[in-house]
Amino acid sequence: MKILVIGANGTVGKAVVAELASRHQIITAGRNSGDYRVDLKDSASITALFKEIGKVDAVVSAAGNVHFAPLAEFSADNYAIGINDKLMGQVNLALAAQEALNDGGSITLTSGILSSDPIRFGSSASMVNAAIDGFVRSAAIELPRGIRINSISPTLLEESLENYGPYFQGFNTVPAAKVARAYSKSVEGAQTGQVYAVN
Amino acid sequence: MKILVIGANGTVGKAVVAELASRHQIITAGRNSGDYRVDLKDSASITALFKEIGKVDAVVSAAGNVHFAPLAEFSADNYAIGINDKLMGQVNLALAAQEALNDGGSITLTSGILSSDPIRFGSSASMVNAAIDGFVRSAAIELPRGIRINSISPTLLEESLENYGPYFQGFNTVPAAKVARAYSKSVEGAQTGQVYAVN
Repeated sequence: MKILVIGANGTVGKAVVAELASRHQIITAGRNSGDYRVDLKDSASITALFKEIGKVDAVVSAAGNVHFAPLAEFSADNYAIGINDKLMGQVNLALAAQEALNDGGSITLTSGILSSDPIRFGSSASMVNAAIDGFVRSAAIELPRGIRINSISPTLLEESLENYGPYFQGFNTVPAAKVARAYSKSVEGAQTGQVYAVN
Repeated sequence: MKILVIGANGTVGKAVVAELASRHQIITAGRNSGDYRVDLKDSASITALFKEIGKVDAVVSAAGNVHFAPLAEFSADNYAIGINDKLMGQVNLALAAQEALNDGGSITLTSGILSSDPIRFGSSASMVNAAIDGFVRSAAIELPRGIRINSISPTLLEESLENYGPYFQGFNTVPAAKVARAYSKSVEGAQTGQVYAVN
């Protein structure tokens, strides 16, 4: 398969590439790294990317930022960061992928455990991750030509424990290599509309 | 209790007022109807409303629009309708209510069944409803002074069957009066962080 991976330079993205590269052709793209530059917040940038790389068999996104802050300090503008970046960035990618994927291709997005298991300061992440999962469940029933879509919803990564551990006390951690297997299942399996929790 | 109901002129809103008015003081507000005018998309408008009506014991929102269209025709701008209106409108209300509610007060928002049970043309509703439920679960653990927050997630209303039935074939319907009891449970009960599905 020819697989586009967005955010391949992140902890999850690197593990996904490591998991898939032995069996498939990987093309990487990102805001500041990868084979190609793309800004998911700009639909025209995504269209230009697909025009350049041609049709693909799978699109994987491991990209997206959200703002963290106490609920009492959150403004609408703070929520807009995650909505525009992690949520609509990935939705824009999925919309463009509808046309850029070969028949039977797949879209794999990234949400996260906070959708259902919240932490302090995480109200935007909970909102955005749940929104991604909701979008995936719904888009799955409308995608044409056998195209599939799933999301991966990991807990805290083992590799992120040092930086974020204090915010996730009591949460299980998983190595990025285990999370990457969920992306493999989404890309190389046959299911659609699924949220793969990895924890 | 002194209860602010937003969207009291809609099918759900009317039923909520009918359910609660015999036991409580109801203040209604909406974009184009109710005792007061408020635009939930404008945080300043919400702040002005609370300044005018003073502290309340419960805030109920039965307001919010989303766009419906085939996935293949959806643009980022189409998704922005539901994000700015049904999602962030209600989130803006919840943020303002943090300060405007008396100790032990409650916030009740409205999502909907499409979060988990999607239909054709409903990808924005699925995204937005799931986002509201995710926000509610997370906000519940950070709200101060015993303030609670829940969402009501109804299936298609019996009263809406004539207009929307063809899009919801096979779904159960419920009368608005039954949905209104879930708002009563949220306002008059003691739970928080709950998504009350009514179907």
